[in-house]
Amino acid sequence: MHKRLLIPGPTEVSADILLEQAHFLIGHRTGEFSELYTGIIEKLISYFELPNSYKATVTTSSGTLWFDIVGRSIVKKKALVCSNGAFSERFGKTIQDCGKEVDFLKVEWGKAIKSDAIAEKLSSGEFDTITICHNETSTGVRNPIYEIGRMVRQEYPDVMLAIDSISGMVGDKTLPSEIDCDIIFASTQKCFALPPGLAVGFVSDKALERARDVPNRGLYTNLVRILDYYERKHQTPFTPNIPLLYTLDKRMDLLLEETHEGVYQRHKAMAEYTQKWAKKHFRLFAEPGYESVTVTCVENTLAKNVKELNKELAERQFMISNGYGKLAEKTFRIGHMGEWDLAGIKEALWHIDEIWGLTK
Amino acid sequence: MHKRLLIPGPTEVSADILLEQAHFLIGHRTGEFSELYTGIIEKLISYFELPNSYKATVTTSSGTLWFDIVGRSIVKKKALVCSNGAFSERFGKTIQDCGKEVDFLKVEWGKAIKSDAIAEKLSSGEFDTITICHNETSTGVRNPIYEIGRMVRQEYPDVMLAIDSISGMVGDKTLPSEIDCDIIFASTQKCFALPPGLAVGFVSDKALERARDVPNRGLYTNLVRILDYYERKHQTPFTPNIPLLYTLDKRMDLLLEETHEGVYQRHKAMAEYTQKWAKKHFRLFAEPGYESVTVTCVENTLAKNVKELNKELAERQFMISNGYGKLAEKTFRIGHMGEWDLAGIKEALWHIDEIWGLTK
Repeated sequence: MHKRLLIPGPTEVSADILLEQAHFLIGHRTGEFSELYTGIIEKLISYFELPNSYKATVTTSSGTLWFDIVGRSIVKKKALVCSNGAFSERFGKTIQDCGKEVDFLKVEWGKAIKSDAIAEKLSSGEFDTITICHNETSTGVRNPIYEIGRMVRQEYPDVMLAIDSISGMVGDKTLPSEIDCDIIFASTQKCFALPPGLAVGFVSDKALERARDVPNRGLYTNLVRILDYYERKHQTPFTPNIPLLYTLDKRMDLLLEETHEGVYQRHKAMAEYTQKWAKKHFRLFAEPGYESVTVTCVENTLAKNVKELNKELAERQFMISNGYGKLAEKTFRIGHMGEWDLAGIKEALWHIDEIWGLTK
Repeated sequence: MHKRLLIPGPTEVSADILLEQAHFLIGHRTGEFSELYTGIIEKLISYFELPNSYKATVTTSSGTLWFDIVGRSIVKKKALVCSNGAFSERFGKTIQDCGKEVDFLKVEWGKAIKSDAIAEKLSSGEFDTITICHNETSTGVRNPIYEIGRMVRQEYPDVMLAIDSISGMVGDKTLPSEIDCDIIFASTQKCFALPPGLAVGFVSDKALERARDVPNRGLYTNLVRILDYYERKHQTPFTPNIPLLYTLDKRMDLLLEETHEGVYQRHKAMAEYTQKWAKKHFRLFAEPGYESVTVTCVENTLAKNVKELNKELAERQFMISNGYGKLAEKTFRIGHMGEWDLAGIKEALWHIDEIWGLTK
């Protein structure tokens, strides 16, 4: 039976979008393809208000590939990795596993990483790159990337700021030039509300120039190759997932219609309702003021059985998520992102209330 | 208008398969997903007759990712790269771009690479890996990988043999343990007749052991992570393209029904018919005896205009391919792979005959 996904990705995808995958295929070295792909890039530029100093691209991969892209194409020698959850930690480990030096700025899970803590670390002058996760899917924490971006740009203009916004982009406000970051990326199965299989990345010209100087970038992780190929041919250097590009094209039309601000407000409304519900019965895992607008991580203070809940929810065609890794059963997570709206979230929480007897 | 693709990838995909993408999504950390993915792995093991000493895996990527996987996870110090076309050359360049040493064994485009030429090179003892392309999509040449495999295993058992079979696997006979190779990979938009977006790889236990010893493997290119994750959890380490996994599951059922031998014979019949047609009017680009069974590269001895041909073919809902890169107009290519059968190939060639006036 179909379960409507309130997990933090893959999120629910409508039948309309799913069917966009069923176009007959076209060659990826044809004018028809260039037209499709150029259209998508232009819609991304428009929706994310990219100035000329940024480039947009789409890779056929999980979002994870971008950890490697940053490790292979951006970090020259040493990166400062801000870590306050499973995904930001994995970002740093990947850079290490690319043979680069890493220093971790570790903050307790559930807490946000603040601009001044980063500034203190950067003052040593030993870092050429800093990485941070916009929206920690494992803890429901939203790091203050706009403040961080402002500080880094003003005080350390040569340090590349690379942001994992895998579960933030689109649902949360994500304007690369306002953040003033160098790299920011996301994958399609989160707030883009598409199936998994593509990642979207925005790259500053400065980051592209940096990449040209970094040796041993490989091929699939070579940012220069990816961006230059588009400039030259308006295509992707490697055969892309064409069906998902049709869905992305359609999604960008829908997003542009709703507007960046409209989409954000819809997500904010869902987040605030979910947070209020969580605070009424449980406690929020995220530090106050730094709650994610796309996924709420709830501290399971009533010691409810999340696994059992999901079994009962399944019969009502819903599915939420247990806590991530070591946080399973101690927390649970509700992803309110993508195509969901407030009415849908209210319905889901109503069912949870009923199953867990929280109604009185 | 829908053009039926006789290009060497993406190839034609039936409506039935395209619609398999439209399943509602499931979480990739669920039992339901593990069941789907385990089923696919088991079907791959069965179809490709993999003994216990091999592992099968599926990555969410173009086939190109596997150039990087070999460069990052397999080559320790120096690779011998057999190059007789655009793709085998790119394989070697990627390994160089991963910071490893490479020596090219270059053979004229159109010619095959023979076992004794490789043996001579390997005798220097300086190589830990050898790479070769099974089926050069740019030239329509099929390299004798079974002979090469036998030689490498007998004389250089510690040298890893990595084979790009992107456009060969499934259409051509591709039994990893009979070839006795360590790594062989393909992508879904060729003979698997699926949309692009996934790659399939088979890896020997020996290659996995080698990978454990190679430093700086990254994350998305880390073969150890990919294979160990499946052993532990029967899932993929990174969010996979779930819609395409549904199509691959369906495809494996169809292939198993037709049998490895049956699929090969169907491709052989298409290749032989196309080769006969090409020799009647033109010349084959491939060295005699080494013609690909999945793509025929035709030397354009009549100086026909391929671009114009494709315009006229489009009206008849067909599309073939121009020559690759520097071979454009000098050659053209007909991909006869995937779901095509002899009747379809005959129909396409009949149209080409009529358009080019080759009928008399």
